Amino acid sequence: MTRVARRYRFSASHRLDAPRLAPEENRRLYGKCNNPHGHGHNYELWITARGPLDARTGRVLDARTLDALVHRHVLEALDHRNLNRQVDAFRAAVPTSENVALEISRRLRENWRQAFPGEWPRLENIQIAETPRNIFEVSINETH
Amino acid sequence: MTRVARRYRFSASHRLDAPRLAPEENRRLYGKCNNPHGHGHNYELWITARGPLDARTGRVLDARTLDALVHRHVLEALDHRNLNRQVDAFRAAVPTSENVALEISRRLRENWRQAFPGEWPRLENIQIAETPRNIFEVSINETH
Amino acid sequence: MTRVARRYRFSASHRLDAPRLAPEENRRLYGKCNNPHGHGHNYELWITARGPLDARTGRVLDARTLDALVHRHVLEALDHRNLNRQVDAFRAAVPTSENVALEISRRLRENWRQAFPGEWPRLENIQIAETPRNIFEVSINETH
Amino acid sequence: MTRVARRYRFSASHRLDAPRLAPEENRRLYGKCNNPHGHGHNYELWITARGPLDARTGRVLDARTLDALVHRHVLEALDHRNLNRQVDAFRAAVPTSENVALEISRRLRENWRQAFPGEWPRLENIQIAETPRNIFEVSINETH
Amino acid sequence: MTRVARRYRFSASHRLDAPRLAPEENRRLYGKCNNPHGHGHNYELWITARGPLDARTGRVLDARTLDALVHRHVLEALDHRNLNRQVDAFRAAVPTSENVALEISRRLRENWRQAFPGEWPRLENIQIAETPRNIFEVSINETH
Amino acid sequence: MTRVARRYRFSASHRLDAPRLAPEENRRLYGKCNNPHGHGHNYELWITARGPLDARTGRVLDARTLDALVHRHVLEALDHRNLNRQVDAFRAAVPTSENVALEISRRLRENWRQAFPGEWPRLENIQIAETPRNIFEVSINETH
Repeated sequence: MTRVARRYRFSASHRLDAPRLAPEENRRLYGKCNNPHGHGHNYELWITARGPLDARTGRVLDARTLDALVHRHVLEALDHRNLNRQVDAFRAAVPTSENVALEISRRLRENWRQAFPGEWPRLENIQIAETPRNIFEVSINETH
Repeated sequence: MTRVARRYRFSASHRLDAPRLAPEENRRLYGKCNNPHGHGHNYELWITARGPLDARTGRVLDARTLDALVHRHVLEALDHRNLNRQVDAFRAAVPTSENVALEISRRLRENWRQAFPGEWPRLENIQIAETPRNIFEVSINETH
Repeated sequence: MTRVARRYRFSASHRLDAPRLAPEENRRLYGKCNNPHGHGHNYELWITARGPLDARTGRVLDARTLDALVHRHVLEALDHRNLNRQVDAFRAAVPTSENVALEISRRLRENWRQAFPGEWPRLENIQIAETPRNIFEVSINETH
Repeated sequence: MTRVARRYRFSASHRLDAPRLAPEENRRLYGKCNNPHGHGHNYELWITARGPLDARTGRVLDARTLDALVHRHVLEALDHRNLNRQVDAFRAAVPTSENVALEISRRLRENWRQAFPGEWPRLENIQIAETPRNIFEVSINETH
Repeated sequence: MTRVARRYRFSASHRLDAPRLAPEENRRLYGKCNNPHGHGHNYELWITARGPLDARTGRVLDARTLDALVHRHVLEALDHRNLNRQVDAFRAAVPTSENVALEISRRLRENWRQAFPGEWPRLENIQIAETPRNIFEVSINETH
Repeated sequence: MTRVARRYRFSASHRLDAPRLAPEENRRLYGKCNNPHGHGHNYELWITARGPLDARTGRVLDARTLDALVHRHVLEALDHRNLNRQVDAFRAAVPTSENVALEISRRLRENWRQAFPGEWPRLENIQIAETPRNIFEVSINETH
């Protein structure tokens, strides 16, 4: 069993503001991230898959297939976007990096089998670094 | 003569859209950065000063004085902000990283002598990395 | 279940010298790190916690609460310190990075529940990079 | 139980060309990496071991013993080499980073007990970054 | 006057062997880099240009024009290549990083005016990191 | 004219305390760095030389000659040392990074001509990063 992790980058803006909370609670909770005009980040995204080595090719997955999947279903939707206004998932959910990672894992899981039709490779986890000092990780459970 | 460079970080959102250009020209010129809803970056800022060593303290400048200057006149204005809407300079100028670096150099030059009253240290240059693969530098000329 | 990792830095000096070993054995074992006058490092510390997403806030933990915990119980004790002389734990234990990581995990576990009173988030592991090429990790077991 | 990870670097050239596949299939599959004249990389290698802390020394393993093992059995064979022509394992297997990681894990497992005769430390995993955006990991199972 | 630096990457293999020197002299001089089968690197390339800000666009240069120039005249020729066998310039010159930087500067200078027809921006320098600890820089003089 | 920069690392401890200043002035000036028991850093050192390319070898300098010079005259004296107590230069001067860079430049200039007897390469500058966010540079003037 081998793991392959591949890095992507995207830049986006967001505002943290929970609709169920009062304005002063939002300000206390999110601080500067609650600025009504928004701010932004360079997100660094690591996608990890695992599987057995294909003895013929010496690889766990085809990197170009993964690139196509990620560009089509993740980067086109999120890169150079305002997450609050341009990504449906963040009408209901606050676009924290935890939720951004969760949304990316949803998009990848929904489209994984079409890109990789066999039993392997499997998506293992999604990591997002919002800044160089903050990393958020969603692990995909075994039974998805 | 010794140089000291110190790094700061800030996160902000912006939209590149030149008021003197037609919409299609803006889209062609700025591509995804012309997205009307904006996007954002983690900016890495390096500020370089130079001067003689103070023989008594062994230093070129007092780092805490520089930190106070940068926090008050740069980071408070730009960090976690929407540059287009919340920074006056970018009502007239497009908030490209070149202009952001220029605006930071203006703010530092205007307030440098108050923070560092003597002849030395002098501000030498401002560097901004908009992403890890793009660096923009404004050098301060000798006669400011 | 989501994981959040957050980075902190501190600088400290230490000397590796095991009291139960003879001087020549200490020199052989620790090499340059046995220098009687000590040396130092910039330590990079990653703290990882895990938990369910809070549906209201979209977060696993409040970063400012973690920051306050780490500053009070870890950084105030270790940053800009001589570990051998100024940290009680290293009177008995050699301040190797393994033991520094263990000491940090003890300090965080002792004070975790006061900072995060509920069942979640839980502290998962502590990583220390003593230099860019050496990483030490202590995992917190499930039953603490 | 503590983990220690240590980084090594090596530079090598390779060509990806699977002997069981037709030339056009190799070109399609490996793209530019199928260039008959080869190309090369700076590989970054992380080796992770785990074990209990030795109460006397405060360490999980002796770093110089690991360095000697890695230099003798890994770096001497791979550093500044043409992997296809100068490493026996890659006569049969395509020198993808997956297979390079696997070959390194074989070399370390074969020689681990001679370097570390006791029950601990145990080799836990091998990570290779072929470029800063591609990481490959082989985990050593518990029963080796 | 503002500077813009932009990073590119390429991977290539090479062998250092000076035709005018005897084999033993080549081995002494280049060490492991003289291995007859070659080895390889991930090269990190920084290209710096300078010029006045275009008041209309807020930019020093059009990044996509630079990208097209670099891809066509540098990366297509060097990326995933064997420098000794596949790049004409290295039939006569040893493909040291100094010479690789010089060759890149030649290619860029020859094609710069076609990509950037005006007086500005001007190419200022080329930097190559062969590994993270070795940087080579060629400065373009004022009169090219 | 080509520049070559090469990176070295060393770890050391120090205490900032200016003998000509009163204790309270030292505390105010150096803050945590005035801790009587000292603290430490991983210093990253970049040494830059410049010169014409040697047409025969394709190089500006012999890297192994530079390595020998730096190891003998810089790293042996500073690595894993207490700068205040074990380096003569810091009996008189406060071991700030400015002074550490100056001391390294003195040691290299004194021994440069013995290592590199010809007119070229010439030492151009010394950079020290005390932490990833603080860089100190000493430029060597043209007439040394």
